[in-house]
Amino acid sequence: METATVIFQPSGLRGKISRGRTILEAAREIGENIESLCGGKGACGKCRVLVAEGRYPKYGVESSRNHLSGWQELEARFITPKMQKEGYRLACCAAIQDDILTFVPEESRAAKQIVSKRPRLLAVDYDPVVKKYYLILDPPSRSDSRGDLERVLSALRVQYGLKDLGCDIDMLHSCDIDVLRSLPVRLRQQNWQVTVSVWMDREIIRIQAGRMPNSFGIAVDIGTTTVVASLVQLNSMRILDTQYIINPQVRYGEDVIARVNYHAQNKEGLQQMSMDIVAALNRMITALLKTTWPQGTDNFDYDEAQAQRLKTGEKYLCLIPEDIEDVTIVGNTIMHHIFLKLDPRHVALAPFPPVVQKSLNIKAGNLGINICPSAYVHILPNEAGFVGADNVAVLTAEAPYKSDQIQLIIDIGTNGELVLGNRERLLSTSCATGPAFEGAEITFGMRAAAGAIERIAIDPETHEVIYKVVENDTWSNYAKTGELKTRGICGSGIMDILAELYRAGIINKSGAFRKNLNSPRYRFNPETRQHEFVVAWAAETAIGRDITITQKDIRQIQLAKAAIYTGCKLLMHEWGTDRVDVIKIAGGFGLHIDPVKALIMGMVPDCDPARIIPIGNAAGTGALATLVNRGKRAESDWVARMVESVDLASLKDFKAEFIEALHIPHKKDPFPHLEPILPAEILFQK
Amino acid sequence: METATVIFQPSGLRGKISRGRTILEAAREIGENIESLCGGKGACGKCRVLVAEGRYPKYGVESSRNHLSGWQELEARFITPKMQKEGYRLACCAAIQDDILTFVPEESRAAKQIVSKRPRLLAVDYDPVVKKYYLILDPPSRSDSRGDLERVLSALRVQYGLKDLGCDIDMLHSCDIDVLRSLPVRLRQQNWQVTVSVWMDREIIRIQAGRMPNSFGIAVDIGTTTVVASLVQLNSMRILDTQYIINPQVRYGEDVIARVNYHAQNKEGLQQMSMDIVAALNRMITALLKTTWPQGTDNFDYDEAQAQRLKTGEKYLCLIPEDIEDVTIVGNTIMHHIFLKLDPRHVALAPFPPVVQKSLNIKAGNLGINICPSAYVHILPNEAGFVGADNVAVLTAEAPYKSDQIQLIIDIGTNGELVLGNRERLLSTSCATGPAFEGAEITFGMRAAAGAIERIAIDPETHEVIYKVVENDTWSNYAKTGELKTRGICGSGIMDILAELYRAGIINKSGAFRKNLNSPRYRFNPETRQHEFVVAWAAETAIGRDITITQKDIRQIQLAKAAIYTGCKLLMHEWGTDRVDVIKIAGGFGLHIDPVKALIMGMVPDCDPARIIPIGNAAGTGALATLVNRGKRAESDWVARMVESVDLASLKDFKAEFIEALHIPHKKDPFPHLEPILPAEILFQK
Repeated sequence: METATVIFQPSGLRGKISRGRTILEAAREIGENIESLCGGKGACGKCRVLVAEGRYPKYGVESSRNHLSGWQELEARFITPKMQKEGYRLACCAAIQDDILTFVPEESRAAKQIVSKRPRLLAVDYDPVVKKYYLILDPPSRSDSRGDLERVLSALRVQYGLKDLGCDIDMLHSCDIDVLRSLPVRLRQQNWQVTVSVWMDREIIRIQAGRMPNSFGIAVDIGTTTVVASLVQLNSMRILDTQYIINPQVRYGEDVIARVNYHAQNKEGLQQMSMDIVAALNRMITALLKTTWPQGTDNFDYDEAQAQRLKTGEKYLCLIPEDIEDVTIVGNTIMHHIFLKLDPRHVALAPFPPVVQKSLNIKAGNLGINICPSAYVHILPNEAGFVGADNVAVLTAEAPYKSDQIQLIIDIGTNGELVLGNRERLLSTSCATGPAFEGAEITFGMRAAAGAIERIAIDPETHEVIYKVVENDTWSNYAKTGELKTRGICGSGIMDILAELYRAGIINKSGAFRKNLNSPRYRFNPETRQHEFVVAWAAETAIGRDITITQKDIRQIQLAKAAIYTGCKLLMHEWGTDRVDVIKIAGGFGLHIDPVKALIMGMVPDCDPARIIPIGNAAGTGALATLVNRGKRAESDWVARMVESVDLASLKDFKAEFIEALHIPHKKDPFPHLEPILPAEILFQK
Repeated sequence: METATVIFQPSGLRGKISRGRTILEAAREIGENIESLCGGKGACGKCRVLVAEGRYPKYGVESSRNHLSGWQELEARFITPKMQKEGYRLACCAAIQDDILTFVPEESRAAKQIVSKRPRLLAVDYDPVVKKYYLILDPPSRSDSRGDLERVLSALRVQYGLKDLGCDIDMLHSCDIDVLRSLPVRLRQQNWQVTVSVWMDREIIRIQAGRMPNSFGIAVDIGTTTVVASLVQLNSMRILDTQYIINPQVRYGEDVIARVNYHAQNKEGLQQMSMDIVAALNRMITALLKTTWPQGTDNFDYDEAQAQRLKTGEKYLCLIPEDIEDVTIVGNTIMHHIFLKLDPRHVALAPFPPVVQKSLNIKAGNLGINICPSAYVHILPNEAGFVGADNVAVLTAEAPYKSDQIQLIIDIGTNGELVLGNRERLLSTSCATGPAFEGAEITFGMRAAAGAIERIAIDPETHEVIYKVVENDTWSNYAKTGELKTRGICGSGIMDILAELYRAGIINKSGAFRKNLNSPRYRFNPETRQHEFVVAWAAETAIGRDITITQKDIRQIQLAKAAIYTGCKLLMHEWGTDRVDVIKIAGGFGLHIDPVKALIMGMVPDCDPARIIPIGNAAGTGALATLVNRGKRAESDWVARMVESVDLASLKDFKAEFIEALHIPHKKDPFPHLEPILPAEILFQK
């Protein structure tokens, strides 16, 4: 027998798996979502699972730990001898040799992330790429038996002056073949009255019967971790709905490098990851369309949607995929490449050449995106291999190139992207923050999902800790017992830690725990051989273990913040300035950042805290701006070409600056005058 | 049980068929090729099959004629009471209610047609639409980390002056997404030396590693009955091979109207017919490619083909689908529409508006044509609903618009298309010849397949008939007994008959059998209630019955030739001329025509027989010309717009002219001085 039965608990998912596959591979095949931040390389330790020993007649399997390949040395980095005895393994290390029953502990489950990534619609003009024209045509007659298309083209020329459409001798793209296929019936449906959708004044992408002035588009931001899609009624400039999902590619690794590696190591890896994101986008599009349907409706075709619209007195827009006539997509270079099934390998290797920089317009039908098949999906341009279309979108949204002030824009996602510029010059770079701020490589790090600690304060005298978790507004000192079952620490919580540990005198400027520290929460863990500070006691948690921050974790956070700081400083040096007027922090993450703590811990250069501005999902905002305004699209093409990409690693000062930036706070305490960060009534009451 | 078992003999094909389907539908489903010229409307009588009565343990069925729906009145038109008793039915009339075993007689089998449709390559210049550029690129470096595409585009601009490529702010079509996908690997395969294929100076459709100067294309002529495809090495202007097949759509009806009806009556009809022709083209392409492979080779990918080419010292070109970078397609308007899955319904109804007239360039990948997926398939323009891209191709090939002489070009396919013109003016029309010249609606008519009588001579004294069959050069009076087992009469045979019957005094000028005709071959058939003339006695045939020509058949031929003659005359009248300088007869059919007989029977206007010129497959020749020469492609776009389409039916003289044209010969015997058509030694020897 070549396969083995694998059962996951508590989900109950099961399947027959080829022997020799790892438990993680089996999980991917069966659809069980096991957390994996490193993409299965045994580097993150997030995929711990418990394998049962014994006969389980209920499930029809006899599970044994001996049904797995042998224990590997690297598993010991994440699994203590005690856990090993209990039957814990890393899912990415243990290969299946016979039937097993596996329990996936809570902390190893890839949970749905809470996001605060709502993009805004800028105050730009309505100047869409797809325009709609209403035509009343003469029907064919003996004296005028022109082709259906020729009839439409000539009416567009005569009535609207669209001259570039189909008068070219090559007559390339005046009309999509799919439109031609619908043309005869749509022309005759309402007595030769039609609405024609024209892309860029040069190609007909849709014909509808009758007068149909409404037009709709979708703006998409494909983040490494989160995907955001907004449905927009273009002619009224309204965002109808926004949907968020976790990028399904996190299954293949949390960061972009893990995904490039997954592609490099798996023949079908790129195909698989591309299909995953396309399928996810289609699910999001369906969800967006559904928000325009009467409740209980399941599906529509073109005619049914028309009927429903009439029936409900246009209370419901009843949109079908065909109604979406434009899409803009932004993402970093790797997400861009994977989505388009372009080999991302070289983007990850110096000198990081992308396959393509310029913006692309690709038929939705060719990408498998389920909207009007003749419509174009517009993918914003990449600046360089390490600064992608997402940053172009941020720039297009914030338009520092229209400002006299020197702006520093920091987009902290899984990667950090930095822009420094004003109307004279734009510099950009990318810095390898590593995934620490996203919770990876931190012992109890996790994504910003339910139960994640997102805010922390430490009493400098007692070293008591209070915290707040995602999806709950109550601080822990006010919470009822068992109310805040925490599971780990997410990005914004991790941001707080460094500043708070330092402020409370627990660590020194170099990030090390103070010598002879006497604190009930400070201890040496003999198993991990690490000093650690307890953030939450086992009893307060959902995982039954103390949630701690170790010396190693602190080092990771220092590396991440130093990377950002160094990037900022070197851009400023390259520019020849020692000050910036404004610091804008993008990313859902930016919304949670406490500017003062960012200054204390030395993540950003000196600046008036009031001028440190969170700008939220600026990439998504840029995607929206280019969706509704054709000029913004041209602007993004222009800015992608004119921005100067600086490769930090090639600068000679980089290493020295970086080492210096590891300290907290950088050089000197910048704001000794500042008040305690949390109001006294929170910190000292119970 | 919902299905019944249907077995066809002698092929042995069998299948389970939903009850209620006709035998013809069952044949289509199972893949049995039963002749059907009318598309299953009970109008042609070509689909006679014999249904067995009894138990057939060998096949596991009990077949009964009672397993079919009842006898229909219209079947009696084609099946005599005697045949009925034997178990004959029309396959399109008899619906299956239970298991049957069916025998398909020889004459009802759709046989492979012999074609003489080789297109010629005109002496045009080599000026292809797809041009190849060899580039030696600088690899990426720290100081130049541009995108792969940007690197290629800039080299094309700098080294070859291709300015329109990718410098547009919209940057629409500078590079196909499929090319982008192959770009990184192809660039690096031979150390940044590549050959770039550029379409119309504006879009990259392919990248190959190294220096690859050869380029290849295919020209296709989709006829109603025959499909012809030629593989051309463009840079050497050589036709490497030409393939011919019967258009698989003949299953749905011989003529274009039958196919439009099939679409109108079957929801998936258009889809089905389009898929059939696309699949057929792909089979032809594979066959064409295979002619460039070493014998015994089965399949290649890109790398294997390269290796093979090297191994065989380039003796074999080893072409793979990707190597085909350009395709031109011609066909009449209905074939054009069906191929593109465009609704052909309105083309068949006055005022006959096509869905589109202009030429189209559609990605091969979007049409499912298995060549380089980013390459464009160029479909020539239609002149009007009733004069299609095939006629445009004929015009482009013959270029009457460059001549001072008035040329009459007659393209007799399943439809007749006429052009009259010189450099001043071009008139075109289509005339409903009906399918008589293709063998339909003639009692013993058949396609030009093996066993078809293609030439006839009648001794005016004895009324003895001699004939020649397709695929055999021997006249019947010289043949050994049993050598020429004939099965019916094909187009060119039918062309001869009218002239020969008239010349031998068997019919009069009005086409009626002479009164009191005393001839051993003339008789009244009480079953069909028709007078008939025996062309071949039962013993000489493969079908065991006398092959005859009936009074009704003669009427059909008269209708067909009168349609052509009337069309010619009315075009001349519209032009204002009573003479033409040259008559060109296109179509494989044209090659077989005896100009003198065409004049005698009154099919073409008076003209010096020496100036009646067969031009063969001029549509295919036009497809080839537009494949190798970009200017010819522009010329075809121009000519399609400038030719004036004349709708014969709308001319007031049409009916009178037509009735007059039915006579043989028209008005007076035009060539009383002519010698007997066959040399005496053939006619009077044995």
